[in-house]
Amino acid sequence: MPESGKTAPRIAVDAMGGDHGPAVIVPGALQGARTSHAALVLVGDKEQIDAALAVTPHQDIDVQVVATTEVITMHDHPAQAVRRKRNSSINVALQLVRDGQAEAMISAGNSGAVMTASLMILGRVKGIERPAIATHLPSLTKKTLVLDLGAVTDPRPTNMIQFALMGQVYCERVLDIANPTVGLLSNGEEPTKGNLFVQTVHPLLAQTPGLNFIGNIEGKDVPMGTVDIVVTDGFTGNVVLKTAEGVVSMLTTMLRQEFTSTWPRKLAALMLRPGIKKLRRDLDYAETGGAPLLGVNGVVIVAHGRSSERAIETALGAAVRSIRHDLAGGIADRIARVTPVIEAEAEIAQPVEAPH
Amino acid sequence: MPESGKTAPRIAVDAMGGDHGPAVIVPGALQGARTSHAALVLVGDKEQIDAALAVTPHQDIDVQVVATTEVITMHDHPAQAVRRKRNSSINVALQLVRDGQAEAMISAGNSGAVMTASLMILGRVKGIERPAIATHLPSLTKKTLVLDLGAVTDPRPTNMIQFALMGQVYCERVLDIANPTVGLLSNGEEPTKGNLFVQTVHPLLAQTPGLNFIGNIEGKDVPMGTVDIVVTDGFTGNVVLKTAEGVVSMLTTMLRQEFTSTWPRKLAALMLRPGIKKLRRDLDYAETGGAPLLGVNGVVIVAHGRSSERAIETALGAAVRSIRHDLAGGIADRIARVTPVIEAEAEIAQPVEAPH
Repeated sequence: MPESGKTAPRIAVDAMGGDHGPAVIVPGALQGARTSHAALVLVGDKEQIDAALAVTPHQDIDVQVVATTEVITMHDHPAQAVRRKRNSSINVALQLVRDGQAEAMISAGNSGAVMTASLMILGRVKGIERPAIATHLPSLTKKTLVLDLGAVTDPRPTNMIQFALMGQVYCERVLDIANPTVGLLSNGEEPTKGNLFVQTVHPLLAQTPGLNFIGNIEGKDVPMGTVDIVVTDGFTGNVVLKTAEGVVSMLTTMLRQEFTSTWPRKLAALMLRPGIKKLRRDLDYAETGGAPLLGVNGVVIVAHGRSSERAIETALGAAVRSIRHDLAGGIADRIARVTPVIEAEAEIAQPVEAPH
Repeated sequence: MPESGKTAPRIAVDAMGGDHGPAVIVPGALQGARTSHAALVLVGDKEQIDAALAVTPHQDIDVQVVATTEVITMHDHPAQAVRRKRNSSINVALQLVRDGQAEAMISAGNSGAVMTASLMILGRVKGIERPAIATHLPSLTKKTLVLDLGAVTDPRPTNMIQFALMGQVYCERVLDIANPTVGLLSNGEEPTKGNLFVQTVHPLLAQTPGLNFIGNIEGKDVPMGTVDIVVTDGFTGNVVLKTAEGVVSMLTTMLRQEFTSTWPRKLAALMLRPGIKKLRRDLDYAETGGAPLLGVNGVVIVAHGRSSERAIETALGAAVRSIRHDLAGGIADRIARVTPVIEAEAEIAQPVEAPH
């Protein structure tokens, strides 16, 4: 049902993505369409999609199916696959957005391919040099938005300013966080800490107008939720994400071992099971509902390969909010306003090189 | 009691380091001397050390006290403090090592100051360009040695090779791991993954003779314990260490909240307490017993500021094993053997610069 008189936005969903394909993506998308009042275009193998639709009630949802014949797998080389597999579900879903037949695209497929195809098919927001992948990591006080997570492994200092600004617009428009705080990931809190790159970026962020920059933060501040937005290069961001995932999975394995080591412990653990289950759900990085690709001309949400139905539902919600609050337009505005200042500063502080 | 006929090695312990100073360091060092058959020189404020000695039985330990009048705090600027506070416990303890009055130094104080003072007072092992801090992180299968952790935030590619070699010698000699596996921390397992720096380092590590290099690893492999040695730059290493610490502390806080939310849960949690306590101890990064400073002329162990008595005891054990197996000599030998090869390779692959 459309919200406040607007028509339901239509979301193109890559039904072939994720570890389980249409069997999980289709019911997840249908539930998301229901809770977020959206219409769907399911893109992928028609037979598999129809099979999934047949077992999921969806009379209340406006669903179209667009059949494609190719699939980009997790093992495909992103750029090559996007060029060669023209009729892949990823390419076609993005073409629907480009051609105005859908307003957003969601995929739990090969994230490198989604990124490459988005750049090729949708292009960048005016003024954005390098789009970034952002995601929410679970933290103590709230969800912490971290970017970039791997789109740009060797950013220039000005890319980092744009990451901060894009994160700011996403927090404000999609997450309803007013004046979100921004931290620069470093190896210490003092402004002088960091490698040479971070030391170059720090004063630029401090001088960026309208940014609630609180300075350097450390790795522990990500799970602690000290700031709303963590800015880092894509290499470090990826390492942080995967370290955090790994520590959670190490801990749950260790807990299981401890809690099943004796019968009385097994019994006690049984009583705690609801609490443990809730915790595991809160901490499952696959459940965070997708990572927006910020800075492309359109709304693109990359979901985790391990996405559950619930994760796809959440990703759909994020897509709808991004459309309703004109995420791409908001980013374009912010960049247009701030770019003259960034450029003036960038001339002063050129990227530094390590001393030999 | 000396082991196998050798005299007990004497360890200089900075009694002023750590959050609790002599009250924790002194009993920890005494217990370490007992279990690892070592003699001690406790360096620091005589009054405080004597007070700690008075309440800890130590008739069986050979203990000397060297009084100092200055203390380098956690808030001091490392290089400045080392230069200005000549009579600090850190400086004096290292001078004892330099002058042959002790064979190793342990400090839970300002780690930057320990590093700077070690370089100034002990100097580097011949052939080593940049010493590194290594530490064990808790992992599922074993302890994983990670280096560098912050000594070198902008290493050159050849520094990374030396990190790998130093880690290898430490694993072999001190931890009794034969032919330890080495992984390069990256944002993906494929050899082509990484930022430009990691892409430069990868082939160099692959070509280093005698190194059991298994290729790129990801952040999750650190807690999973996929390799024995994780090689990374000091900036990324610090971020990984602190992210892991933060996630553990986030999780224990969340567990506490879940397990005390209702009376039946509190009761059940009571039964699981021994298991939870064991887990917390296994995962406490302050308990890992210190991080060796590899590549300086002597044995220096940096302990966590939050070190408990048990952590200091473990650090003492690591110091004694490092002395008995001639860690610094082993590093010098390995570097002398491998350096010609590294240098030949370094000429081929110069450090790269990010494209603009």
